[in-house]
Amino acid sequence: MDFTSDNAAALAPEVMLGLQAANAGTASGYGNDDLTKRVETAFSDLFGREVGVFLVSTGGAANGLALSALTPSWGAILCHREAHVMVDEAAGVEFFLGGGRLVGLSGIGAKVTPSSVEAGLAAMDGRVPHQIPARTLSLTQATEYGRVYSADEIATLCETAKRHGLKVHMDGARFANAVAATGAEPADLTWRAGVDALSFGFTKNGALCAEAVIAFDLALNEELTYRRKRSGHLWSKHRFLSAQVLAMLEGNAWLKHAGHANRMAALLAEALSENNGAELVFPPDANEIFCRLTPDLDVQLRAAGCHYYDWPGDPETGAGDPTKGQVNRFVTSFATTEADIAAVRAALVTRATHSAAAG
Amino acid sequence: MDFTSDNAAALAPEVMLGLQAANAGTASGYGNDDLTKRVETAFSDLFGREVGVFLVSTGGAANGLALSALTPSWGAILCHREAHVMVDEAAGVEFFLGGGRLVGLSGIGAKVTPSSVEAGLAAMDGRVPHQIPARTLSLTQATEYGRVYSADEIATLCETAKRHGLKVHMDGARFANAVAATGAEPADLTWRAGVDALSFGFTKNGALCAEAVIAFDLALNEELTYRRKRSGHLWSKHRFLSAQVLAMLEGNAWLKHAGHANRMAALLAEALSENNGAELVFPPDANEIFCRLTPDLDVQLRAAGCHYYDWPGDPETGAGDPTKGQVNRFVTSFATTEADIAAVRAALVTRATHSAAAG
Amino acid sequence: MDFTSDNAAALAPEVMLGLQAANAGTASGYGNDDLTKRVETAFSDLFGREVGVFLVSTGGAANGLALSALTPSWGAILCHREAHVMVDEAAGVEFFLGGGRLVGLSGIGAKVTPSSVEAGLAAMDGRVPHQIPARTLSLTQATEYGRVYSADEIATLCETAKRHGLKVHMDGARFANAVAATGAEPADLTWRAGVDALSFGFTKNGALCAEAVIAFDLALNEELTYRRKRSGHLWSKHRFLSAQVLAMLEGNAWLKHAGHANRMAALLAEALSENNGAELVFPPDANEIFCRLTPDLDVQLRAAGCHYYDWPGDPETGAGDPTKGQVNRFVTSFATTEADIAAVRAALVTRATHSAAAG
Amino acid sequence: MDFTSDNAAALAPEVMLGLQAANAGTASGYGNDDLTKRVETAFSDLFGREVGVFLVSTGGAANGLALSALTPSWGAILCHREAHVMVDEAAGVEFFLGGGRLVGLSGIGAKVTPSSVEAGLAAMDGRVPHQIPARTLSLTQATEYGRVYSADEIATLCETAKRHGLKVHMDGARFANAVAATGAEPADLTWRAGVDALSFGFTKNGALCAEAVIAFDLALNEELTYRRKRSGHLWSKHRFLSAQVLAMLEGNAWLKHAGHANRMAALLAEALSENNGAELVFPPDANEIFCRLTPDLDVQLRAAGCHYYDWPGDPETGAGDPTKGQVNRFVTSFATTEADIAAVRAALVTRATHSAAAG
Repeated sequence: MDFTSDNAAALAPEVMLGLQAANAGTASGYGNDDLTKRVETAFSDLFGREVGVFLVSTGGAANGLALSALTPSWGAILCHREAHVMVDEAAGVEFFLGGGRLVGLSGIGAKVTPSSVEAGLAAMDGRVPHQIPARTLSLTQATEYGRVYSADEIATLCETAKRHGLKVHMDGARFANAVAATGAEPADLTWRAGVDALSFGFTKNGALCAEAVIAFDLALNEELTYRRKRSGHLWSKHRFLSAQVLAMLEGNAWLKHAGHANRMAALLAEALSENNGAELVFPPDANEIFCRLTPDLDVQLRAAGCHYYDWPGDPETGAGDPTKGQVNRFVTSFATTEADIAAVRAALVTRATHSAAAG
Repeated sequence: MDFTSDNAAALAPEVMLGLQAANAGTASGYGNDDLTKRVETAFSDLFGREVGVFLVSTGGAANGLALSALTPSWGAILCHREAHVMVDEAAGVEFFLGGGRLVGLSGIGAKVTPSSVEAGLAAMDGRVPHQIPARTLSLTQATEYGRVYSADEIATLCETAKRHGLKVHMDGARFANAVAATGAEPADLTWRAGVDALSFGFTKNGALCAEAVIAFDLALNEELTYRRKRSGHLWSKHRFLSAQVLAMLEGNAWLKHAGHANRMAALLAEALSENNGAELVFPPDANEIFCRLTPDLDVQLRAAGCHYYDWPGDPETGAGDPTKGQVNRFVTSFATTEADIAAVRAALVTRATHSAAAG
Repeated sequence: MDFTSDNAAALAPEVMLGLQAANAGTASGYGNDDLTKRVETAFSDLFGREVGVFLVSTGGAANGLALSALTPSWGAILCHREAHVMVDEAAGVEFFLGGGRLVGLSGIGAKVTPSSVEAGLAAMDGRVPHQIPARTLSLTQATEYGRVYSADEIATLCETAKRHGLKVHMDGARFANAVAATGAEPADLTWRAGVDALSFGFTKNGALCAEAVIAFDLALNEELTYRRKRSGHLWSKHRFLSAQVLAMLEGNAWLKHAGHANRMAALLAEALSENNGAELVFPPDANEIFCRLTPDLDVQLRAAGCHYYDWPGDPETGAGDPTKGQVNRFVTSFATTEADIAAVRAALVTRATHSAAAG
Repeated sequence: MDFTSDNAAALAPEVMLGLQAANAGTASGYGNDDLTKRVETAFSDLFGREVGVFLVSTGGAANGLALSALTPSWGAILCHREAHVMVDEAAGVEFFLGGGRLVGLSGIGAKVTPSSVEAGLAAMDGRVPHQIPARTLSLTQATEYGRVYSADEIATLCETAKRHGLKVHMDGARFANAVAATGAEPADLTWRAGVDALSFGFTKNGALCAEAVIAFDLALNEELTYRRKRSGHLWSKHRFLSAQVLAMLEGNAWLKHAGHANRMAALLAEALSENNGAELVFPPDANEIFCRLTPDLDVQLRAAGCHYYDWPGDPETGAGDPTKGQVNRFVTSFATTEADIAAVRAALVTRATHSAAAG
């Protein structure tokens, strides 16, 4: 049972089938192929409007490209201080910008709020030109702590952002999980709420290596065209990038897999927390669980072959007061099975039995 | 018959098998997996020494990373003025450098020579600090016109470069074709000759999307580690990048496929040029043919379903005097078949017959 | 009485005389002149060893150049979270780096300590390559709150930094004030303690526009040569930059002026705080005073034509608990006179009298 | 007699007087002072419309800031291949852009023409996205070979540029000389003709260190505000930058000095070329003379204490066929005197006499 990350999984079956189907004959390179055209159409259909589509192979690339297209190189980007762009991309956004700066916001469960946005803006103090101005707000959906923004929350955040002249980017590495969790229309979680560009992730959801930058502001298309190419993110055999995404979009495999991962997370959270087994740090909206295992439960689960990460506690983000014990992160994916959950449950039962016997 | 580019082909069978084999279970992300370790070992074996290995998905990424690791951001890079980094990567190298400049050298068939390097250096005139200093020489092997450098030629170029304090990079998008063409050891074409870093391409040779930056100067490893990550070129499901390369390296599939492409090019060149059919602009050392078709032959071949590019003539690089007629580029790949060549030949025979009948 | 900033002052008399003396005849541009050679010699004499000298016209330029020469473009720089490079240079360091990131440290009075450096490093967690590595520590001497590091404190901080592989930069916009305050040798406050590069400011101390990047690590000279030129910071009529600095260095005018500013600050602090007039937030080591005026005293002083800034309180840096009242900053300079202090004192006496009368 | 460069001269008397007048009392920093407001008004008056004004201390800074504000970081800038930005600024423009590329155009006397612009665009071939698109045309007025564009020529070039979607920048390091030479209105040489931003130089014309970026497109103001600050080009004691420019603008000192320099060049050209003394390579429109001295005349002049540069010949730009002998550059300035010309003439007479005697 590997719950370390959803990127530890292999490929969703549709993706491998899609790659195999694409693996015939010749095709023009660099996106001038039929599959790519179909992907563009599929995204426009999904979002109910024309969108710009730029496929790349990593989330870091998607975020860096989207944010640098939205933000002047001398501008600041607001994001949660535990956002992936802040803590996990090796200052990639700053590289794509050629400077700039990320400004960390607070918020429980890595969710920013209108008041944390306002507080972040106020703290920048705006002494022109000594401080760079905030230009973009980046939201992660689902968040780095597995929380989900509702369409209304996003709309309110976008309203706050626009009032201050900010563009809005959404890091949707787990956008599918958020759509599955909310049941909302993709359009309502993005452009209808005011999002200007979305990094729509497929890799964690079963693709081999596919993320889409979706431009709702079509004026970004030219920026993204040249920025993708010059950063080495335009594939020559682009059809194989499109094939992955198309396989996920057709028949709504993306939503099916994300929904499955979310359900597995709910079951896992239940299994972990029942019988006072573990304290959940956050309600698992999507496919990530943050909880506090007792030391003996931790030993028991690891002994049973269960893999997951210790996570740094952080009272300010609600990620756990380190004095209350170690926080652990479990991530489920399309590949997590009910058997995996049952195995966890078995380990827990063992423990309960063992504890009862010891008691 | 698609001779437009070797990147128009699909996947070599070994690559798809490798992907399928890797598609099971979970694995740690970001290169912390067994396949990646095996790739690193395989490259060290291939080059007969320890090397740094950094897999990425495009040649532009490999070149940008390698060149920015080798060159200070205020330095100049010498390359042939028709080098891929100069004309086909949307100023990606300058982006990775955060400035810098490419300086174009002359040379027939996109091959630079010691004297063209010396001439390029002399033209820079070196007024410190008004002109940035040359720091790196980038060679393309095989060149953009399908020519190949011998191990001796590379050694001489490296000697010239080192004498002027330049590092040497090799853009080996078609390195496999060059190895197959020369029969030389990979080591003799690279580090033993003085090359500091190599972009070793697999995509054009049958991979889905795999290029390796090979660092012979191990001091580059740290630079490349962080530069790859921050530019969004480190895959999370890295095992699927390693699987492609491993499939090519094991059993020398890379060399077999490149040799096949070269042989197909030789046959195609013969087919095109026999009976005064087409004038070869360059001898086809590797898998690219540049020739001048007569207008009626051009029509005939295209009518027969043969695809290839018109190419800009350029007398200075020997790529053809435009006044002498249109130059055409044909590229063969691992996927080119003898049947493809036969089909071309058939079209030519038709023409010959037709010409004879008309004559 | 203008206490808003030491950069509100005009020129020290030596500087204007120096400019006038330099204003004759012709001279080679770009630093190839006699005055510049003399400046280089004067700095080497001052520091008791050979140093690299790069004059520029702003502190932001000096810091950006020094830090980008010391730090790889993918590295992080540790500095106090209220350091000038962090809050007052519009993300200039990130621009000069082409990415990178500043990491804010805590510390009372904007002084970092070995433990705040250790805490900053620990918070970065060092997951390679997801987080960029710390590479440089930047200290401000005197600090943004007018505190001064002793030679021993700097040596200890450098020892901590070196143990973690960090280079050390000193932002010495008010280095002269720190030297005057400590009575230490410039060498003991810098290279002997382990500092690799210094931004040595002259503008706040009476120059028109002159800051020197001093490279103690001579390997930085080439980096700085090209970085200064390409960023537009190499003057053509460079002799007029050298003339300013030479006028300050010769006869130790720099030290005399800084000592005077410090003494004026001590007198001003005394005047402000006597009779319970104002609470000093920090002891004024150098030429800046942070204090908390009572509202009526504030009114009184401003009515008397005294100019100074309200300053944001920040309990975490000891800059004042906002709930305890507004903090004010007073800065003295070479141009502050005893008459200015007397005028402040007169306003205070007025107040005292007035208060007594009202009492 | 120093004819090496106009930046070898000291300060025009008005500039020193302006600095002395500004050297009193305190003033707000960073351009929030009265002199700066007066400079802004003076430029608006000069150009007959509102303009953005951004003073900096070098021409490289002015060009880098203006071009990076006009051009996306992924765009190309067309300029003459001997333009200062191309050959003398250490790839500063690329640094300010964070990538991008300069594309060199041909043209006699470093003057580009509509046809050289068209040829440059045609050579880029525009394969999207493999080549970066041209976005800006940079013209130097007066050119690096001392030639001047008429208002009509600029209008025609701007029309060509706009037709291709290019912005237009003017490097006016010697703009004053061009205005003096043409007698045209500054407005007619710039915004009325279609120029979007101008680097207006004062240093070569007698300032200590002052160049103005003039934004005719007011939308550039925000870009320039932040770009100037973050690159370290916003002075704290900004009044001393404004004082220089104001001294030059008031009473039209800038035009008087440039006109003088031009007249001195005309006289010098006459002196050099009479009696078959030297062959002029270009007619000296402004204050630079390029000529070919006979070897003995060269010796004679240098022996008489005359300083000037040998210049690389370049038949393609008309800068001289190296086979026809060494080209020399003479530059006059506001400080050149009729006595200097007389001294040159005396050396020539000596030669003529000597030659006659020898004959």
